[in-house]
Amino acid sequence: MATTRSVLASPAADFPRWFQDVIAKAELADNGPVRGTMVIRPYGYAIWELLQADMDRRIKAAGAANAYFPLLIPESYLQREAEHVEGFSPELAVVTHAGGKELEEPVVVRPTSETVVGEYMAKWIQSYRDLPLLLNQWANVVRWELRPRLFLRTTEFLWQEGHTAHATAEDARAYATRILYDVYRAVMVDMLAIPVVTGRKTRRERFAGAINTMTLEAMTGDGKALQMGTSHELGQNFARAFDIGYLSTDGQRELAWTTSWGSTTRMVGGLIMVHGDDAGLRVPPRVAPTQVVVLAVRDETVEAARQIAVDLGAAGLRVSLDDRTDQPFGRRAVNWELKGVPVRIELGPRDLAGNVATVVRRLRDSGKEAVGLADLTSTVVAAIDADQTHLLEEATKRQIARTTAVATVDEAVEAAASGWASLPYDVVGEEGEDRLVASGISVRCLQRPDGTLPIEDNERGLTAFVARSY
Amino acid sequence: MATTRSVLASPAADFPRWFQDVIAKAELADNGPVRGTMVIRPYGYAIWELLQADMDRRIKAAGAANAYFPLLIPESYLQREAEHVEGFSPELAVVTHAGGKELEEPVVVRPTSETVVGEYMAKWIQSYRDLPLLLNQWANVVRWELRPRLFLRTTEFLWQEGHTAHATAEDARAYATRILYDVYRAVMVDMLAIPVVTGRKTRRERFAGAINTMTLEAMTGDGKALQMGTSHELGQNFARAFDIGYLSTDGQRELAWTTSWGSTTRMVGGLIMVHGDDAGLRVPPRVAPTQVVVLAVRDETVEAARQIAVDLGAAGLRVSLDDRTDQPFGRRAVNWELKGVPVRIELGPRDLAGNVATVVRRLRDSGKEAVGLADLTSTVVAAIDADQTHLLEEATKRQIARTTAVATVDEAVEAAASGWASLPYDVVGEEGEDRLVASGISVRCLQRPDGTLPIEDNERGLTAFVARSY
Repeated sequence: MATTRSVLASPAADFPRWFQDVIAKAELADNGPVRGTMVIRPYGYAIWELLQADMDRRIKAAGAANAYFPLLIPESYLQREAEHVEGFSPELAVVTHAGGKELEEPVVVRPTSETVVGEYMAKWIQSYRDLPLLLNQWANVVRWELRPRLFLRTTEFLWQEGHTAHATAEDARAYATRILYDVYRAVMVDMLAIPVVTGRKTRRERFAGAINTMTLEAMTGDGKALQMGTSHELGQNFARAFDIGYLSTDGQRELAWTTSWGSTTRMVGGLIMVHGDDAGLRVPPRVAPTQVVVLAVRDETVEAARQIAVDLGAAGLRVSLDDRTDQPFGRRAVNWELKGVPVRIELGPRDLAGNVATVVRRLRDSGKEAVGLADLTSTVVAAIDADQTHLLEEATKRQIARTTAVATVDEAVEAAASGWASLPYDVVGEEGEDRLVASGISVRCLQRPDGTLPIEDNERGLTAFVARSY
Repeated sequence: MATTRSVLASPAADFPRWFQDVIAKAELADNGPVRGTMVIRPYGYAIWELLQADMDRRIKAAGAANAYFPLLIPESYLQREAEHVEGFSPELAVVTHAGGKELEEPVVVRPTSETVVGEYMAKWIQSYRDLPLLLNQWANVVRWELRPRLFLRTTEFLWQEGHTAHATAEDARAYATRILYDVYRAVMVDMLAIPVVTGRKTRRERFAGAINTMTLEAMTGDGKALQMGTSHELGQNFARAFDIGYLSTDGQRELAWTTSWGSTTRMVGGLIMVHGDDAGLRVPPRVAPTQVVVLAVRDETVEAARQIAVDLGAAGLRVSLDDRTDQPFGRRAVNWELKGVPVRIELGPRDLAGNVATVVRRLRDSGKEAVGLADLTSTVVAAIDADQTHLLEEATKRQIARTTAVATVDEAVEAAASGWASLPYDVVGEEGEDRLVASGISVRCLQRPDGTLPIEDNERGLTAFVARSY
């Protein structure tokens, strides 16, 4: 795989530069014309679509229905929840002119939709019979970013945002937790092959307007942390601000309890940062737009290559055919490697004469294997199953190996230079958190000793995971 | 069905009011907080999702890949194509402030994406090998509307917009035409059960920046026209403005030929306006979120109703269970009728005792039918197949019956009071078109005598379809 190394920065030497290079060379995305925006190219978008389809299925299985709320929100809506407006004001994009006139009230491009959803929940919910109300939307949002980075932090990004209303605090908490585990963690682990540490955010890191933010954190190839999704208990903050009330079974008017939860195109960035290597992207087979590519080495093998592609496709695999025999073979092979396609099948005249094809796997440097044509489908199916598992194992091993249990904040700062640190949150506290932040490190999340979620801010005996982050 | 009539305006008496009532009572959408925007509620969005999934499948089958381009476009981009900026300027929403500061160059919220896509096509296309480049995106766009109407003309709407680049004018035209027929017309007819007249727009009605706009026009319940989708040949206008060039096989630099094509959430409005009746919505089964609802009439039939719902679901039908036995049965039945669910199965104690269920079809006023439980699935499957066909036939008959062939512009004005008129375009011309517009009527499209598409503006012997429109 040596040939690709020249076109990419080395991830060991300059991880952020390598990340940019992979995005460009694998044709995942480009910078947009307005600072911080992103053009998602077909290959990057196809990964997102596979991810999105799986997540959408799980969200619906959790009982939420999709809806769509407007992009443009009156400025006054954001001001109704004090913490919320304070948190989002610096990031807002504001439309002041429209239809050739100055608007009487400026409208903001949604940075998130709690406020507008809250307004409609208040209209739609009358009685306990209307609860829980479980909504989700797939949408774009805009947050003006000072330090944008493709996929990870863009001025506009795509996401799903769930919004639910419940009769009780317990029901709201249970649902937000269910989303964290049954939807988000399941997608990360089963589809993206990314292990995640789940926990509660500290007060400092909490979503603006929430009483509890739960998070999933992944470890990147350079040992930093990447927040992959969050699920929030909003308490009655938004219910109070937007008057989301209901008549209870005994006829009393009560305020509802709401949640919100989101996951974004950042997940594609996570995939790159967790699984990529010196030769480029490595896409987990379950989200790979192309699971196997069939390369005709020369003109006289194009027809046979096409037939192999058809057969593999008929077996339910996502297949591409590369019949660009007018282009150098080496460059084509490197290109598919850069794109992280799990399995490459090369068909040259000699292969064809021997009734075999040459199988090359993206995950193994173990060289090429001649496989009989009759065994190709079973070989590819077995390879992609094994690779999906292997990628998860590899990432899990790294996460364990590069997480150091320490006892003090100073030791945590040292450990976070090259990985994550875990330490008792009792020795950190808000003051220690300030010291970490001063060193460019943050508390990623808090866990109980058994790995479960704390349900109060002031629980004792919690473990803090701390790290540098993207 | 008399009970529903009271909650809806009569379509015969006040069609626009009836349309609004159906949207509200069937819980399809609400007005958004910013004038002209729309909240799409879960039931309306579920129709859109089914439509979208089918359209997406057909777009991919036509070879286009999905991508995503930014929402925010520099104002200067729009100015590069003179007709385009002139057409869209009055409708633009402009972001002047972001991140707490005034922007150096204002950015517009995309009204459509030809300009930004053009900029990237110019980067991505180098040689003839990169053509055709076939892209599509699912996105929201904003056009400031003076006279907004839910689903039909909203300030923000959801759509797909395809953008393609080709080596020759012929290839571009062939592709734009393929989209018109194989994607759009197929979705309208096969999924929405809406017959459409396809044709070429006159110069006056053409998309800003196109050399040819092809359209699909549906007839609404009140005999007006509704444009359901358009496909444009853009010639080399955008290729010139954005320098979309390629090296030809003989090494010459040539300008590409581009197309664009779009269909929107307006299709849901079309569904309502074409198929709705006095009792509310009638949803064609193929896009019905609920194809069959099972109503437990009383508590003691809830379990059996649930089992019926499970069995119907296992047969691949989209099923809802209505077990709200604490609410009046009549109101529940009317509610499902309003929502246009094709088949209603009512299960009361007497039904259960007789091992039957009562089947009520939305399309037939012919009353209720007792069906043996063992025959329910086959009965429902046959009913929805028949209903899909019936809705298309009914709409086709109306379109034919209410289209009058006339010979003069004056006769066309008279005929368009209650339906469409068709007449020789040679007797209309640009002057006649002005007279029609002065009477609130427009030329919807032009066809050759054999129903095919004219390929020149000045062809003689064309038929013009003229009508009032939404």
